[in-house]
Amino acid sequence: MSGASTITALDVVDVRFPTSRMLDGSDAMNADPDYSAAYAVLRTDESGPDGEVLDGHALAFTIGRGNDVQVAAIEALAPLVVGRDVAEIADDLGGLARRMVRDSQFRWLGPEKGIAHMAIGAVVNAAWDLAARRADRPLWQYLAEMSPQQIVDLVDFRHISDALSPDEALDLLTARVDGRAARLATLHAEGYAAYTTGPGWIGYSDDKLERLSVEAVERGYCQIKLKVGGNPVDDERRLGIARRAIGEHIGLAVDANQIWDVDQAIEWVNGLAHHDLAWIEEPTSPDDVLGHARIRAGVHPVPVATGEHMHNRVMAKQFLQAEALDVLQIDAARVGGVNENVAMLLLAAKYGVRVCPHAGGVGLCEMVQHIAMFDYLSVGASLEGRMIEHVDHLHEHFVDPVHVVQGRYRPPVGTGLNARMHTESLERYRFPDGAEWRDS
Amino acid sequence: MSGASTITALDVVDVRFPTSRMLDGSDAMNADPDYSAAYAVLRTDESGPDGEVLDGHALAFTIGRGNDVQVAAIEALAPLVVGRDVAEIADDLGGLARRMVRDSQFRWLGPEKGIAHMAIGAVVNAAWDLAARRADRPLWQYLAEMSPQQIVDLVDFRHISDALSPDEALDLLTARVDGRAARLATLHAEGYAAYTTGPGWIGYSDDKLERLSVEAVERGYCQIKLKVGGNPVDDERRLGIARRAIGEHIGLAVDANQIWDVDQAIEWVNGLAHHDLAWIEEPTSPDDVLGHARIRAGVHPVPVATGEHMHNRVMAKQFLQAEALDVLQIDAARVGGVNENVAMLLLAAKYGVRVCPHAGGVGLCEMVQHIAMFDYLSVGASLEGRMIEHVDHLHEHFVDPVHVVQGRYRPPVGTGLNARMHTESLERYRFPDGAEWRDS
Repeated sequence: MSGASTITALDVVDVRFPTSRMLDGSDAMNADPDYSAAYAVLRTDESGPDGEVLDGHALAFTIGRGNDVQVAAIEALAPLVVGRDVAEIADDLGGLARRMVRDSQFRWLGPEKGIAHMAIGAVVNAAWDLAARRADRPLWQYLAEMSPQQIVDLVDFRHISDALSPDEALDLLTARVDGRAARLATLHAEGYAAYTTGPGWIGYSDDKLERLSVEAVERGYCQIKLKVGGNPVDDERRLGIARRAIGEHIGLAVDANQIWDVDQAIEWVNGLAHHDLAWIEEPTSPDDVLGHARIRAGVHPVPVATGEHMHNRVMAKQFLQAEALDVLQIDAARVGGVNENVAMLLLAAKYGVRVCPHAGGVGLCEMVQHIAMFDYLSVGASLEGRMIEHVDHLHEHFVDPVHVVQGRYRPPVGTGLNARMHTESLERYRFPDGAEWRDS
Repeated sequence: MSGASTITALDVVDVRFPTSRMLDGSDAMNADPDYSAAYAVLRTDESGPDGEVLDGHALAFTIGRGNDVQVAAIEALAPLVVGRDVAEIADDLGGLARRMVRDSQFRWLGPEKGIAHMAIGAVVNAAWDLAARRADRPLWQYLAEMSPQQIVDLVDFRHISDALSPDEALDLLTARVDGRAARLATLHAEGYAAYTTGPGWIGYSDDKLERLSVEAVERGYCQIKLKVGGNPVDDERRLGIARRAIGEHIGLAVDANQIWDVDQAIEWVNGLAHHDLAWIEEPTSPDDVLGHARIRAGVHPVPVATGEHMHNRVMAKQFLQAEALDVLQIDAARVGGVNENVAMLLLAAKYGVRVCPHAGGVGLCEMVQHIAMFDYLSVGASLEGRMIEHVDHLHEHFVDPVHVVQGRYRPPVGTGLNARMHTESLERYRFPDGAEWRDS
């Protein structure tokens, strides 16, 4: 790492997997997803610890149509990073994230939401991959080795300071330094709990649901999750099958993927509550803070979970202020990157709410495990009731996929963010000209 | 109109105006906008009332960088409209809007927010232009001639039914039928009030501010608006200049364009309140329902206005439920088209909040005047405290621009949505290959 080096390019690939052919990933709102990635690579002219040219990889996740638009949005950010000094970027990732979010012309396209914000998230996360690889660390460790002040500097406190000031965040992080070594030992010894959504896709037959539920228990998962909201008779039957298959001691969560209105959600969930539900996830619009607060009060004691479509820290702030959720399901690729997820972890810690990341999709497990492990070490500092979603799906396309052993994520031992895909996968599934699509 | 006809194409043009060269449009958050449009045309093989081939024109407004992404997002929607029967589209615009919003793959990119949602808005609005032209009516009149049930059918009640049910909406609209003829006569006689933001851009000198403020009064505007939030000393001085220039009886609103955090907003606005403020606009993040509610309580009696970045009806619902605003500033191009704006008008009417549309930009005045006039005739049914923003800027590029006479919008007399731009303007300002950009 001698001499100044530069970000030389931002390359983006449209990658799509034809998952709709098998109804993997089907739910009440999303009938036929083709899991896709707008895959971003920050290239540099710098050599890494092992002499290879350093680069940073990350992705925005979509479910098919419009992935090309997501690609275009990431490409539109190239002028904000290409040509910049690598060390300047890597040493001030908070500055990078704030600069991108505040670009006055691009900001209009959100602000801080949807395609534009996911594009920023992909570039910011690629920069994190680059920075962690440069430091020869897995991202979770790179983050956990930062001082409280360094962590505070990552966060954009704009529009959340009424709930959490930089000073409060610093105090919170400083208080968590104590015990971190013991938590690190626990993480290495025990890993981080996983739950699985694999059995519960709405397009699966009862037989497949039962078989996969039994398998989930055998594989050591602490919880399974079923998609609901299609029709109450089916939901009742499927929950019965699942509960009988997993027994009393495994968690059984349900996920409506936003299909209900507020009053409908309360009625529907209360009708299913006798199955001892671990949580109801996305009962209504992800934008509806007040609706979630009403639902939470109306379905008590069933916990309310949401977050995979929570588009930024301002929404997280309000869900916490309004006591509208019990479980915050951060997503690695929905918001403005690692930095905004750190803001959301800090908010959750302040309000005493547990974080159970959303994952699945393409590469979401790979990326979000780092955030969850960092949360345990430095922010939330607890494993109680915490678990990361796991869908055993599409991991074969990643160079360094997640390791889930007996239902627990093992801390990644490589370097970076683990979002790097095999070159062959990128080529084969590239849309529309990869072999998988050209020949279909 | 004999025989079945078809939507044959969705053409989209990237049009940008180099407004940043003059600091027109500058505010605390947006330093150097280049007002731009992702301009959408639905083409058909149907002949209109005068024998010309019918088409529908609308646009999404952006402020420069990323307008190409907005174009790509609109283009991605072509499979949902091209090849469809024109009559089927025009006769069920509610169905069209719901179908686009619920496309399960595209939905992931929002849901119902940002670039993806603005793209839907542009296509839906182009379909409205087409339908109104087909009926040989200006859009406001085409809407106002619909029955209460037809208007209810336009609206997607998903995720707002806890605040407004279809039956309630029908009752509200039915109650407004009475008096509509008298309101129509008033509209023709008096037009609809306009206020101007022209004097108050933050990049203008004190002299220019003063001169334009005096001119605004001479031109009959009922209110002017100043951009604030850069620095309190400047704001105090500029408000003094403006108030002296316009006198006591003209409204003086201020607009912070989201620059403040919640507590800062309260303090800053209270420091300026002695200038008798007509409203404080966008004091903080447009996503922050609870923050706006706190600000509104904290700056009372200064009214709080927001809406130009309110990304959908679920947000409007919550701002109204939480009593977080006094003035709802709908925008023609931010949400999912005319249909979602009708939902927002109905919500505002139910909660008794006045609607004062955001406009300016490129073509926003042209489009939103129709919604405001329809609101007066059929929904809100009042002109009290209502006014449409007017910026006298870029209208020369439109075939049928707004007519603002002595500070009042005249009801459009042509057909359609008035978003149609001159072919020469589209060619000259097309980015990056139009003459204006190629030679710069």
